[in-house]
Amino acid sequence: MSGALIREQICTMCRDFYKLGWVSGTGGGIAIRDGETIYMAPSGVEKEKIEPADIFELDAEGGVCSRPDGKFKLTACAPLFMAAFKQRNAGAVIHSHSLDVVLATTLVPPGEPLILTRLEMMKGLSGVGYFDSHQLPVIDNTALEHELEDRLSRAIDAFADATAVLVRNHGVYIWGRDASHAKTQAECLDYLCRAKVRMHAAGIDHTAFDRSEPDAPPVATP
Amino acid sequence: MSGALIREQICTMCRDFYKLGWVSGTGGGIAIRDGETIYMAPSGVEKEKIEPADIFELDAEGGVCSRPDGKFKLTACAPLFMAAFKQRNAGAVIHSHSLDVVLATTLVPPGEPLILTRLEMMKGLSGVGYFDSHQLPVIDNTALEHELEDRLSRAIDAFADATAVLVRNHGVYIWGRDASHAKTQAECLDYLCRAKVRMHAAGIDHTAFDRSEPDAPPVATP
Amino acid sequence: MSGALIREQICTMCRDFYKLGWVSGTGGGIAIRDGETIYMAPSGVEKEKIEPADIFELDAEGGVCSRPDGKFKLTACAPLFMAAFKQRNAGAVIHSHSLDVVLATTLVPPGEPLILTRLEMMKGLSGVGYFDSHQLPVIDNTALEHELEDRLSRAIDAFADATAVLVRNHGVYIWGRDASHAKTQAECLDYLCRAKVRMHAAGIDHTAFDRSEPDAPPVATP
Amino acid sequence: MSGALIREQICTMCRDFYKLGWVSGTGGGIAIRDGETIYMAPSGVEKEKIEPADIFELDAEGGVCSRPDGKFKLTACAPLFMAAFKQRNAGAVIHSHSLDVVLATTLVPPGEPLILTRLEMMKGLSGVGYFDSHQLPVIDNTALEHELEDRLSRAIDAFADATAVLVRNHGVYIWGRDASHAKTQAECLDYLCRAKVRMHAAGIDHTAFDRSEPDAPPVATP
Repeated sequence: MSGALIREQICTMCRDFYKLGWVSGTGGGIAIRDGETIYMAPSGVEKEKIEPADIFELDAEGGVCSRPDGKFKLTACAPLFMAAFKQRNAGAVIHSHSLDVVLATTLVPPGEPLILTRLEMMKGLSGVGYFDSHQLPVIDNTALEHELEDRLSRAIDAFADATAVLVRNHGVYIWGRDASHAKTQAECLDYLCRAKVRMHAAGIDHTAFDRSEPDAPPVATP
Repeated sequence: MSGALIREQICTMCRDFYKLGWVSGTGGGIAIRDGETIYMAPSGVEKEKIEPADIFELDAEGGVCSRPDGKFKLTACAPLFMAAFKQRNAGAVIHSHSLDVVLATTLVPPGEPLILTRLEMMKGLSGVGYFDSHQLPVIDNTALEHELEDRLSRAIDAFADATAVLVRNHGVYIWGRDASHAKTQAECLDYLCRAKVRMHAAGIDHTAFDRSEPDAPPVATP
Repeated sequence: MSGALIREQICTMCRDFYKLGWVSGTGGGIAIRDGETIYMAPSGVEKEKIEPADIFELDAEGGVCSRPDGKFKLTACAPLFMAAFKQRNAGAVIHSHSLDVVLATTLVPPGEPLILTRLEMMKGLSGVGYFDSHQLPVIDNTALEHELEDRLSRAIDAFADATAVLVRNHGVYIWGRDASHAKTQAECLDYLCRAKVRMHAAGIDHTAFDRSEPDAPPVATP
Repeated sequence: MSGALIREQICTMCRDFYKLGWVSGTGGGIAIRDGETIYMAPSGVEKEKIEPADIFELDAEGGVCSRPDGKFKLTACAPLFMAAFKQRNAGAVIHSHSLDVVLATTLVPPGEPLILTRLEMMKGLSGVGYFDSHQLPVIDNTALEHELEDRLSRAIDAFADATAVLVRNHGVYIWGRDASHAKTQAECLDYLCRAKVRMHAAGIDHTAFDRSEPDAPPVATP
């Protein structure tokens, strides 16, 4: 895909993410990799209004190759986006401030992961099945975004099956093999966190009535 | 309706369903029957972005007659869609991952149906009245979607008045005489499940204050 | 306004009401009066898809003057719309299935009205102030919509200050001097019911911390 | 920016605010300052439908310089908008009836401020950090909007770090250096109030599991 198209795609996705509540109030963002070039939405602006010319270009080490005019700043999330590109060879990384994800992080004790199980939408996450106890890391927040880099990087290493790192009271970094895949990963996580938070609020344990069996042979069809 | 129009209709409906939260993150889908031909949305893609050329055509037995180019896969839901076409002569079947429907399934004990009563929106469901205790089957989920076929098929047979089968922690298969009817059925069920879940969370019993009487003669008008 | 414009307006408003959750699944509707002629959305169809040619025209007594082609039916709500036109000289009447309004009706004991107080949005309702205890009638539902006519008519007479009648577990009939006014009345009621239901669910009494005084002289400005 | 563009901008923002639930049912509004001229949305109309010609122009003291045709009224919020322009040199002021903000005010005891802490979205508010205990004034409501002027003005003086004054059971006045900044401030506050209200309803204390430390040196990166 040409750089011009990727710039357009970032703008379109930011408008879509704004409607989903992921990037309101200048928060959140997205970066897309094309070979050795990384395209990144700028910092501190209304994400739903950015234009193709407002996008930064970085090299594979995170160095800025091309910057928009002076009023735009490189996001402090840049090293965090780079961690997923470098450590996981991601094709795209989304940083979302989804309130459902944030509320889900408030339910996870310190040092423990978010655990997902027995919800069909888990199957939308790469390599995850309905009967798994899928673990996603939750790291504590810092005063400045770039200070998250070390703990985020370590969480990526420690949770080899995860395609996301949640940040307590803050949001999530989530990635995929390309922009479309990163977006469907983020949608599934959003849905799963919303499910967890709504069930918590309503006093629902969704595993209580579940009589399905992971190890049973498939039901024979006539 | 021509096949081209039905393909367009599936794309339009998928965009609408995405906005309603029924087919996010590649989940969910729709199939429409035209005589002996069934048109079916593909698997594992962003449903809000499919194009008319991406649709599968199946015959009345579920055999593939025409497939889009190689990157698209037939959905594992195909046998489940086919069950409603064959057993109920449905004109269209929707598979929704609506979170409200999923949360409603968590409230139903094993082996029991979802029971709807005394909500006006029930009248939007085929053949259902305000004072009915309308029963909808809830089946347990499986690791693989196609493994649901046998239990879904038996639920369709066992609940002759139902136009939907709910799958615990997963979603719903719901159908109608045509695409428009299937969509209004799904909207009514969505609303009714949202009502049940919100009332559960708020500790509301909506029948407690209801003094209406099913068997009373209509109130005389002057 | 010409009849053609009013027909267009009904279609536009139905699309807007669908997005607001008031007329999903074929439920709900709207009627607008122009002098002695009443324009009314048809029954049992997807309201967000109706066309200008699908609208019924009635005379001031509710007799049908002009009907769309045979596939459309006059709504069973017609006598209920007529009650507000005749008894209140309304310019437009909206019938909404808003879930927030429905849930608000579940909180009102039999024979009692819905009471609104100390919420600024009350001031959007005709003639209502922040410190009022504004009463809206709640009637019980019936098996058939037209059976509501007598009790709705009596409720309109009994609550001279109300511009709406709520129907338990069903929705609301709400009117205004013209279409725009009816719509803002419905928006305010929707907001107020949503507030009441969310506060009920969260155990909030919004009057507990309110130290404002209705009878105090206005605070002097320097 | 020309006056014509600012008038367009007010109309566009009102449509956006309507979708966000800030200005439904004729409530809420916005005023933008350009040098010594203030442009203000009219009162008592559907805000999502106003046109550029419907906007009032005021001078720096709040006197009306230019008014739309006679059917439009100057909003009773005018002196409240003026307070933020005069006391804070704001570039734009938004008055929102956001239900989440209103519900958040119900949680604040009389005489106390709303306190925000340990939520990343706080960083979207001017000059506020994650570890701050950021205080926003909450004033009690009055029967007539303009009667709020004195207490709002005093709250602005008393809370020098705040860019908003909340009004109990009513909404918020919130401002920024320009229209875009005021809007992102309002989005952040909306998100933060929604977080507080949802956590209150769910019995969540989001600080309980937070092990981040404000005074620790930044984590060293390798």
